[in-house]
Amino acid sequence: MIKLYGYWRSSASYRVRIALELMGVDYDYVSVNLRTAEHRSGDYLAKNPQGLVPMLEFSDGTQLTQSLAILDYMDSEFEGPKLLPRDPIARAQIIAAASIVACDTAPIQNLRVLKYIRAEHDQDDAGVKAWAAHWIADGLSKLEKTLALDSYAFVGSQDPGYLECVLIPQIYNAERWGVDMSRFPILSGINSHCLALEAIQRALPENQPDAG
Amino acid sequence: MIKLYGYWRSSASYRVRIALELMGVDYDYVSVNLRTAEHRSGDYLAKNPQGLVPMLEFSDGTQLTQSLAILDYMDSEFEGPKLLPRDPIARAQIIAAASIVACDTAPIQNLRVLKYIRAEHDQDDAGVKAWAAHWIADGLSKLEKTLALDSYAFVGSQDPGYLECVLIPQIYNAERWGVDMSRFPILSGINSHCLALEAIQRALPENQPDAG
Repeated sequence: MIKLYGYWRSSASYRVRIALELMGVDYDYVSVNLRTAEHRSGDYLAKNPQGLVPMLEFSDGTQLTQSLAILDYMDSEFEGPKLLPRDPIARAQIIAAASIVACDTAPIQNLRVLKYIRAEHDQDDAGVKAWAAHWIADGLSKLEKTLALDSYAFVGSQDPGYLECVLIPQIYNAERWGVDMSRFPILSGINSHCLALEAIQRALPENQPDAG
Repeated sequence: MIKLYGYWRSSASYRVRIALELMGVDYDYVSVNLRTAEHRSGDYLAKNPQGLVPMLEFSDGTQLTQSLAILDYMDSEFEGPKLLPRDPIARAQIIAAASIVACDTAPIQNLRVLKYIRAEHDQDDAGVKAWAAHWIADGLSKLEKTLALDSYAFVGSQDPGYLECVLIPQIYNAERWGVDMSRFPILSGINSHCLALEAIQRALPENQPDAG
């Protein structure tokens, strides 16, 4: 059985959970508690010296890290519905749209960055919230405008996949940090559609065994 | 002829220049001056509402954005040496290693983030430098440890590709911000090897028409 090392509130773990559920893959969930720094413990670092989740582990011991690499691998190697379009231009457009979130947004409002600005830049709760909300709104605004292009019209008519794996966790964070999602009607529409699906409900942070 | 919209000092533009040169693709270079905010001008935003470089434009008008999406497209669709390994596990490992840079490092020390901490967190030159150096060293340290794993031994024996497209620009930034690269012997070795190649020399920031 495949093992997913993750944490309920990690966005990158949530991406991979959505992908596993959309593709109908059975897996064991291994919680790595980021709050108690299990990801920086010797046991976990020996497996993954990046000290990050998620990590996917196959029964032969092969380990894959980094959510985008895992999604790419799953799309090409796993049975089940595909995560990426077969058309090369549409594929590139989806990867580009997901990169607006995965490269230009999520990393800047990551927990370790928030901890740093609190400690090193003397930011209080309001300052931390302002930082997270600023970068999330900036990224989602770029994505909303991109998905509004004619060349992205196909996104609305296809089943959730790679883009949604990355987007749904980002919107979860947006709501957590008080970003006004009504500014982003295309993204909000995708989110509502996805959250109504049983597969994505199984992947929700609050439905994980380590939630709390 | 393919057009690359880029800026000499943009890391993400530099990634795509390296890929084009490694694959032997002829292209026209269109400078988008980030310093004078050409990327936020109406003309450029009409093409790319993200307001970011790089963008690749084909002669039929099709436009691809986001460096990782462009590299993925080039690898699967362009003639010439491939950027990614054909073996699925090796491919996933390379994408994961590149993600340590492209997702976990580069975005946090991006120019717009540095501008924000200067303006909103009252950081002076020393504070900005400390921020950039901290996150670059953190990311490169994770990458160095990852490439030291037995499962990554193959990296040293293959031609430069996807990983090097992302790594060489990050090391350029590391040196610019005073990160001590002697801490990272594996990465330094890859960098020295790559910088000796004519293809990569053509892609260097200082060898672009808009450098200065």
